[in-house]
This record gives sequence, structure tokens and C-alpha cells, in this order.
Amino acid sequence: MKLTIKELAGRLGAELTGGAGSPDEPITGVGPVERASESEVTFVTDDKHRAAMTQSRAGAAIVAARIDGFNRPQLIVTNVNTALIKTLNLFAPELKAAPEGIDPTARLGENVKTAKGVSIGPGVVIDDGVEIGSNSIVGSGCKIGENSKLGENCRLDSNVVIYHNCSLGNNVVVQANTTIGSTGFGYSFIDGAHRLIPHNGGVVIEDFVEIGANCCIDRAKFGHTTIGAGTKIDNLVQVAHNVVIGKCCLIAALVGISGSCRLGDGVVLGGQVGLKDNIEIGAGTMVGAQAGVMGSVPAGQKLLGTPAVKKEEALRIMCLSMRLPKMAEQLKQLSKRIERLEAAEDDKK
Amino acid sequence: MKLTIKELAGRLGAELTGGAGSPDEPITGVGPVERASESEVTFVTDDKHRAAMTQSRAGAAIVAARIDGFNRPQLIVTNVNTALIKTLNLFAPELKAAPEGIDPTARLGENVKTAKGVSIGPGVVIDDGVEIGSNSIVGSGCKIGENSKLGENCRLDSNVVIYHNCSLGNNVVVQANTTIGSTGFGYSFIDGAHRLIPHNGGVVIEDFVEIGANCCIDRAKFGHTTIGAGTKIDNLVQVAHNVVIGKCCLIAALVGISGSCRLGDGVVLGGQVGLKDNIEIGAGTMVGAQAGVMGSVPAGQKLLGTPAVKKEEALRIMCLSMRLPKMAEQLKQLSKRIERLEAAEDDKK
Amino acid sequence: MKLTIKELAGRLGAELTGGAGSPDEPITGVGPVERASESEVTFVTDDKHRAAMTQSRAGAAIVAARIDGFNRPQLIVTNVNTALIKTLNLFAPELKAAPEGIDPTARLGENVKTAKGVSIGPGVVIDDGVEIGSNSIVGSGCKIGENSKLGENCRLDSNVVIYHNCSLGNNVVVQANTTIGSTGFGYSFIDGAHRLIPHNGGVVIEDFVEIGANCCIDRAKFGHTTIGAGTKIDNLVQVAHNVVIGKCCLIAALVGISGSCRLGDGVVLGGQVGLKDNIEIGAGTMVGAQAGVMGSVPAGQKLLGTPAVKKEEALRIMCLSMRLPKMAEQLKQLSKRIERLEAAEDDKK
Repeated sequence: MKLTIKELAGRLGAELTGGAGSPDEPITGVGPVERASESEVTFVTDDKHRAAMTQSRAGAAIVAARIDGFNRPQLIVTNVNTALIKTLNLFAPELKAAPEGIDPTARLGENVKTAKGVSIGPGVVIDDGVEIGSNSIVGSGCKIGENSKLGENCRLDSNVVIYHNCSLGNNVVVQANTTIGSTGFGYSFIDGAHRLIPHNGGVVIEDFVEIGANCCIDRAKFGHTTIGAGTKIDNLVQVAHNVVIGKCCLIAALVGISGSCRLGDGVVLGGQVGLKDNIEIGAGTMVGAQAGVMGSVPAGQKLLGTPAVKKEEALRIMCLSMRLPKMAEQLKQLSKRIERLEAAEDDKK
Repeated sequence: MKLTIKELAGRLGAELTGGAGSPDEPITGVGPVERASESEVTFVTDDKHRAAMTQSRAGAAIVAARIDGFNRPQLIVTNVNTALIKTLNLFAPELKAAPEGIDPTARLGENVKTAKGVSIGPGVVIDDGVEIGSNSIVGSGCKIGENSKLGENCRLDSNVVIYHNCSLGNNVVVQANTTIGSTGFGYSFIDGAHRLIPHNGGVVIEDFVEIGANCCIDRAKFGHTTIGAGTKIDNLVQVAHNVVIGKCCLIAALVGISGSCRLGDGVVLGGQVGLKDNIEIGAGTMVGAQAGVMGSVPAGQKLLGTPAVKKEEALRIMCLSMRLPKMAEQLKQLSKRIERLEAAEDDKK
Repeated sequence: MKLTIKELAGRLGAELTGGAGSPDEPITGVGPVERASESEVTFVTDDKHRAAMTQSRAGAAIVAARIDGFNRPQLIVTNVNTALIKTLNLFAPELKAAPEGIDPTARLGENVKTAKGVSIGPGVVIDDGVEIGSNSIVGSGCKIGENSKLGENCRLDSNVVIYHNCSLGNNVVVQANTTIGSTGFGYSFIDGAHRLIPHNGGVVIEDFVEIGANCCIDRAKFGHTTIGAGTKIDNLVQVAHNVVIGKCCLIAALVGISGSCRLGDGVVLGGQVGLKDNIEIGAGTMVGAQAGVMGSVPAGQKLLGTPAVKKEEALRIMCLSMRLPKMAEQLKQLSKRIERLEAAEDDKK
């Protein structure tokens, strides 16, 4: 894909301001401020970008307001992020569409329903009673267990495994090697052995959820493990049985959410965060990376640390921990001074 | 599956005590105390459940002793956990049994031995010399490397990969996308590069071990990485080369067990725990979530924190860490008071 | 494989010193000092090994200098690690070579180029424009996306998924169930929803990189996520979009490297380490297990803790944290002594 700067401005509905370059110069891609080449357009979404623009070699820039230090054409837009996504889509590598239809090497059970435009890849195994909505794509090597359902416009990348009785809404994306509906880690210790508690429940994944690669979403013992609409999950994340995640949450990589946790809408968990089982995280709460949350938390908090406490408090404790050597020394000095005072006091007796 | 309350009591060998409902009412499933519907049976395994029973809408309850605040039929049993597992199995979703035999798309090498009742799914690849015991199920897309052995009644879910010379006992379950027998992370730095130390050993997994989804169990450099009978492993767990895990351990999600660690029987590791390499964890020791164990530990301990120490000590340290801002303030105040005393002392000279 | 001790010495170019055993005794394998049997050779690479040699039952030992307490034949070599790798390779289990050619069940797109000696396993799916260098092995169930490239002598184990536009150099090993080129976790919040930022970039993996099982390497938004030559990555590791890893790094299991991090050459990250996004880790820096690095770090550091600080400092802080209960008690005592002094002072007024 090649567009002139002027054409790109037109596509974005951007106001084009002049600069040293001609608006008829071609743009062949998008690059970050510090690495974009002369044939690439860059974008400015924060002050760090803005400061670096004087050094940028980019052929043009998408900005919210004209930047003085950059003398190439600028495309002024209302929302740089929206324009950036549009631009990246214009310059996305062209890939062959998944072929419509069911690959002859796919194995479908009885009473499988596939709607219009569905693509089922090579080596896929789909068990009885599965339903797949229109235009959904099931990549090679996937397995979908009995009676599971996919909505419309879903995409399962290669080697995803979905067990029985799981339900995915519309526009759900699941990246490669992820497992959905595995049996959770629930045992009773009876007569000297751990006995598995049967997991009769399923998994419900609502519309527009996106799940990264190599994740695990366990099925419920009763009812459903649920992931709310619009929630996005990074790679290598563990969601245990009976967890209920709200809408529009962001869960970063290597997070572990223990059994029966309930997350409100818009919760954000940083990388490697761990949640104790059976706790509730209020809507909009943000938990910093590597934190360990040991109890329920109201809405709108910012947490950090293990055990997780309010972020400012955690940072203060971290700072003071760094000063522990100094504090130990101060204690020693105070003790000596007291000894001297006590000795002086004794002398007087 | 539908059973009347009376029939369910019969199946469980439970004593049925009366209540507002008729023992001929149908039960269609199992639900937790706070969510069970009128056609579901619930169960009481702890005080929290017991307290919530007055509010439960459940049609019946499985209990160890009659609960006064709940006026529906109660099924009194010796062990509620045992009865719960039985009941859940009665109401488990009915799934088609894995078809006996070897799928025509599976690829078997030379000298592969499969016993009676074995089910080998579509697209499975089994290399030379593999042996699979009776009634074992190998899900679609699995790979089993040369000379590996599965016992009886094993179940490998879809896309599990087992490398060569690994041995699984009887009744072993491995969930989807797990890798067993990968080469461990052992390198020698020679002539400016990390050279892989060949891993000539294998993996031995004993009877009744259950391994979750997307786990990695590395093969040994010498001898065998070993997982003892009855041990249960959650999802996304890393077991490094030459690790020896005892019997009946519980290993929660996202745990990392470094090379050559030795775990006694009945060890419990919480989520995201990390163990330093070459250490020994005594039998029955329990390590709390996110802890980092940096040295060997005797049997029967409860540990927490990084570095992990005894749980009560760790909790006390966590508490005191929270009080660090107060301690810093106290130090400041004490220092001032000493200054005043010193000034008074100086005045007298 | 069976060799006499004398033959093994010959193969290793080792000087053979006498001992109680005959140099014509057969050696059938390699074992660690404390577990090697009489028909196995052991090896001494550190003082711990050396001390334990007096108890070893090994039939022979590979050493850098003669050890007095061990009275069996010793094979003296310049570099024990090099000799150990050679010996382990001599005694490695003999495995069938991957069959040359393209399995009839593999599915190749248009314009796929496979060089001499390539082995493509059963059920593999390779999209248009992929190129695979000579003698590379693609295991069963792998998927390689459009226009991706593998160099020579690469090995993808079963069920590896490589997305489009990824490039692997020569001698790259990727173990089972790993995902390369998945879309990263980059969203803009626009009009009440998280919108995916398209990831137009790819992944570049240089020569001699080895990646463990069940890892995730995300593709870049712009440019390439890059893993430098000779770097080794353990299992279950997350490498986010736009990360650039230098040469000869070691990344242990369950590490999370956030977006746009830059690692110099020879960086070592312990298990479960987490790196904040957009930071730079200088060449040769070593980060201890479970540490959380929250800012850029110069070259040659040793770090530990969350937030990660210099190792000695972190250890000192850890030690002092353990002494917090004592410090709290000291504060209390000091306060009492000051009170007494103050009371005495008051009396005098």
C-alpha cells in the first residue's frame, strides 16, 4: 500500500498543514517518532513523543495540534489514537483471507451447525452439537468439545482447545495454543488421596473478548466461569474455575486469578499479578505488576505490592524499606546517645 | 439426569430428614448455597456455608448434621465431600465416550503397542516403540515420542506433546496443550557461547497424577524428572529438569520449580510460588502463594514471603512493613527527645 | 552405546590416570557424583562435586585435575564441561531421524520454498510464501503463517505456531506448544472500548536461539520484536511486542518481559522475573529470580527484589526486614528509657 501524504490526510479526514516536504510525497508505512524513516508517517500521542519530534526523520506526522519543532507536513486530527489505528490498518500486511468452508481434513461430529462464511481449518476436530456463527474462523489443529458454541466473527488461531459446554459470544478472538474449559484445580482430600471435584459447569465468554496465546480458562464446578464483554487478556494468563470477570477489563501476561474471584468492570491487572481465591475486586480498580491481592478491594482503587495495599502507601513502604539500613544505623546511634545520657544521670546519683 | 430427593438420598446412602418440601420433588443439579435454585441440591462443608443456609433457596441440602435454619429436606451423610463428588457425578453433563480404536488419520510408528480399549484421536502422531495401556485415551493432535509409555486408563487431552522416553503410570490425566519431556534449561558457557548440556534422561509420572493445561515438565539430564503418585498439578506450571516431586503434592498455577529440586510427599505450593534450584522441601510443607523459597526446608512447615520464612513470621514482617512509615516517624520523635535531653545535660555543665 | 574407559578417554582426548578399576571396564552412561553407578562415568565441575567424590561409586570420573580421594580411573581434560557434553552426546538415547521430505498430510500453500533435507511432519500447515532452509525440521501439528522464514538446521517441535512475517535464523530450536508472532497486548481506549492497535510488525529470531516449550513471543506494532543470536529462553516465558533482546542472553522460566523493553547482550533473567515496559537492561546485567525491575539499569549490574535494586542492597534489606520485629521492640525499649530520663529531668526542675 502506498499513499501520498495528501491522500492519507483525506482518508483520515485530517487537516493538512504545510512543511518542508511536498504533500504529494509517498508514505509507505508507520513508524514511531524516533525510528520512522522519511517515507513513513509518525504519530504524537504524548509529551515524550512531542519532545522527540524535533529529532524525527519521519516524512509526516499525525498530531492533535501543530508541533512547531517539526518542519514536515502534519496531519491534524481530533483523536490521534483513532487515526493511528486507521493508518496502521491501511498499511497492514496483506494476508490471504481464511478460505471459506470446511477443510476436508477437519472432523465434524453429529449435529454440528456452521453458519454462512465459516472457515474451518485443516485437522480441526469438532465434536457433536457444536454451533459456529457466521464468518467465524477456526484455525488449523483446533479442537472444540461437545455442545460448545461460537458466535459470529470469532477467530480461533491454530491449536486452540475448547472443551465441551463452553460458549463464546460474537467477535471473540483466541490466539494460538490457548485452552478454554479445562477442568479446574479442585480436590477434596478423602481417605488419603486428593479426589477431583467434578466440574459440571462451563465457560461463558462474552462479545469482543480477546484472549492471548497459551492462556488457560478453567470451567466451573457449578454455573460458569465468565469473562465479560470487551475484556482483553494477554498471554499465559490463568483464569481458575468459577471466576467472574466484568466487562472491559485488561489482564496482563502471566496473571493468576484464583478460583471464584469476582472482578468488576474495567479492572486492570498488571503482569504477574496474583489474586487469592474467592475475593472481589471492585470496578475500575488497577493492580500494579507482580502484586498479590489477599482480600477483597472496593471499586476505583490503585493497588501495589504483596500483600497489595494502596499504591501510594505501597510506594512509601518500598521507599522506607530501601532506608532500612539507615534506620538500623539510626537506632544504634540513638541507643548510644541514650546510654551516655543514662551514664550522666547515674553519675549524679 | 433427574432424581427425586428421596432417590438421591438412596444413591448417597443418606439419612433423609423432613422439611417444607416433599421428598418426591425432582432435583436437576447441584449448586452452591447462595446460588442453588429450588430444583437444585446444595451442600454444607464449612461454617461459611452453614451461616448462609438460612438464606439458601436450594431444594435440598447435603449436610453432616441437621441444620436448623434450613427448612427443606436435608440429606445427612458421613462425609459431605464424598457425597458431593458422587452427586456431581450423577448430574455431570453426558458426554459421548471417546471412540475405541485408532483414528485412521493417526500416525503410528513401528512397534507401537496399544492395549484393549485404547482410543487414539484424529491427527495423533505416535513414534516407534510407544506402549499405551488399556482404556487410555489420546486426544486429537497429540504427539508421543519414541519409546514413551502410558499406563492404563490414562487420558491425554488435545494437543498434548510427550517427548521420547517418558513414562506415565496408570490413571494419569494430562490436560490440553501441556508439554512433557522437553529439554531442560541447562547450558555451559564455553568459548563465548551457551552450549546445551544434552538431556539423556526422561520423565517418570506415577499413577493418579493429574496435570493441568499448558504445563511444562522438562526431561532430566541424567535419570528422570519424577512426579510422585497422586500428585496434582494446576495449569501453566513449570517443572524443570531432574526435579523429584513426592506423592500427593498439590502444585497451584504458575508455579516454577527450578532444576533438581526435591519435594517430599504432600507438599503444597500456592500459585506463582518459585523454588530455587537444588533445594529440598520436606514432606507436608505448605508454601503460600507468590513465595520465593531460597533454601531447603524441613518437613511440616508453613512458609510465606520472598525469601520464604515461617508463615507467622512472614505475616508479622508484612504487618511491620506496613508500619514502617510510623516507625520512621517514631525514630524522628525519639531523636528530638534525645536532643532536648542532651541540650538540658549540656546546660548543666 | 558401550565404551571402555580407555576408549572414552580416547574420544575425549583425555589423559587417563590409573585407579582401582581397569581401563578396559565398560562405561554405559553418565551420572552425577552422588548417583552414578559403577558402570557410569561421573564428572567434577565444582567444589561441591569434588567434596562428594570420596563417596562416589562411579566407575570413572572426568576431572580437570586428579582428585585424591577417588580411587577409580580419572580422565583429565582441559574443559570438563566440554568433555561432559561430548560424553553425554556419546551416550544419548538413539532416536530415529526425522524423515526427510514433506509428509503427505502436511498442507503447503503457494510459493512455499523448502530447501534440501527439510522434514515437514504430519498435519503441518504452511501458508503462502513461507521459506524453510536446508535440513530444518518442522514437527507434527505446527502452523507457519504467510511469508515467514526459517533458516537452516532449525527445529520446531510439535504444535508450535508461528504467525505470518516472522523470521527465524539458522540453528534455531523452538520446543513444543510455543507461539511466535501472536498479536501483542496493545489497546487504545476510544469511545468506551479498548480498540486493538494493529500489529503490522513481525518477529526476528537470530541464529542459535533456543526457545523452550509453551512460550509466547508477540509480534511488533512497528518494526520487529527481536531475539539476538545465541540467546536461550526457558519454558512459559512471555516476550511482549517490540521487545529487543540482545545476544547470548539467558531468560529463565515464567519471566515476563513487557512491551518495548531493550535487553543488552548477555543479560540473565532468573525465573519469574518481571520487567516494566519500555525499560533498558544493560549488557551483562543479571536479575535474580522473582525480581521486578521498574526502571532502566546500566550494564553489568546484579539486581534482586521488587523493586529490583543492587543484589547486596536487596539482600541487606531482606535481612533487615527479617529483623523488623526486633527493631520494633528496640524502638519500644528506647522510648521507655527516654521516658525515664525525661522523668528524671522533670524531677530536677
